[in-house]
Amino acid sequence: MSRWEPGARDRLERAALDLFLERGFDQTTVPQIAARAGLTTRTFFRHFADKREVLFAGQDEVPALVADLIARAPAAMEPMDVITWGFQIIAPTMFQDRGDYPRKRRTVIDSNEGLRERELGKLANLSDAINRGFQARGSDDLTATLAAEIAVAVFKVAVRRWIDQTDGDLSAVIAEALNALNALTTVPRTAPEESGHTYR
Amino acid sequence: MSRWEPGARDRLERAALDLFLERGFDQTTVPQIAARAGLTTRTFFRHFADKREVLFAGQDEVPALVADLIARAPAAMEPMDVITWGFQIIAPTMFQDRGDYPRKRRTVIDSNEGLRERELGKLANLSDAINRGFQARGSDDLTATLAAEIAVAVFKVAVRRWIDQTDGDLSAVIAEALNALNALTTVPRTAPEESGHTYR
Repeated sequence: MSRWEPGARDRLERAALDLFLERGFDQTTVPQIAARAGLTTRTFFRHFADKREVLFAGQDEVPALVADLIARAPAAMEPMDVITWGFQIIAPTMFQDRGDYPRKRRTVIDSNEGLRERELGKLANLSDAINRGFQARGSDDLTATLAAEIAVAVFKVAVRRWIDQTDGDLSAVIAEALNALNALTTVPRTAPEESGHTYR
Repeated sequence: MSRWEPGARDRLERAALDLFLERGFDQTTVPQIAARAGLTTRTFFRHFADKREVLFAGQDEVPALVADLIARAPAAMEPMDVITWGFQIIAPTMFQDRGDYPRKRRTVIDSNEGLRERELGKLANLSDAINRGFQARGSDDLTATLAAEIAVAVFKVAVRRWIDQTDGDLSAVIAEALNALNALTTVPRTAPEESGHTYR
């Protein structure tokens, strides 16, 4: 989130990520992060509660942002179309424009079970916000809950695929995942050429 | 998993759960759990690494069990039908026949952020196993990954709904969730009466 903030927070984030990759998450200390960023430990703690939270910086704002986006979607839009529309708005700023940050971050998180669990907890908070957003639009509880879970699942799968590619377009990867979801859940009794709904 | 094991492990699980509910997870100690079960702390540590793991007992076996189940599904079965079929086999022994255990366990896990994250980590392991199971059946990487995420999402949503009901049938709740998923992902261009594929 602080990509365009030239200050301390951004420097600390990048210093931490580089050290986590070089030495491992467990072996990196807060004084080392501060030193690498050319800042004091005190400055570090003005921005982050601990070294783990550096990896989740800005994520606490995401659920509210997403809930607001869902509220602003045209009223007639079906839940899956709201999800598709929302992705195309959020994806570029959250990932595409952040250079090698998402890939490096993913490598660190994958290396540590506690970090993986923390990441899943943050995604669950996002799912809760999407769920509330759909309920506010009038979806029943079951539909809203499932739509939120599916949105987060597609998001998770698409971002991981995009990170694994060296030069991909996140919007295209999301559209591809939504189409695969559609193929998976479309029942065989409908002829394949009739059932395809392509997300663009 | 140790529901039908009359021994120490089962007594420790129930003693721990009761104490977590009475005093809170953080306030409960291993000696208290052992004492409540009428056993020694040493016996506790023969069965569990720590008090947290009591809540996840037997879960490490689930991914392999589910992967095996997917491998045994008829070859012609579509991924979503494999998921539906698998649920009907697994649900009763894992939840339905375990009395008030799932409800109590859910209450404890919901009360603690670390436990919630741990639970999500275990579900992610389950998703990985389902993913590998579908890839072994010949699904492409994207389809297998999405099918696994959706299976876990439906499972999570259905179990929670079932727990929230006082006297529900888990199979019925799962069928209801699968139907809601179908309604959500079936595109509007197909007339509603044509698009319904009912999971029974």
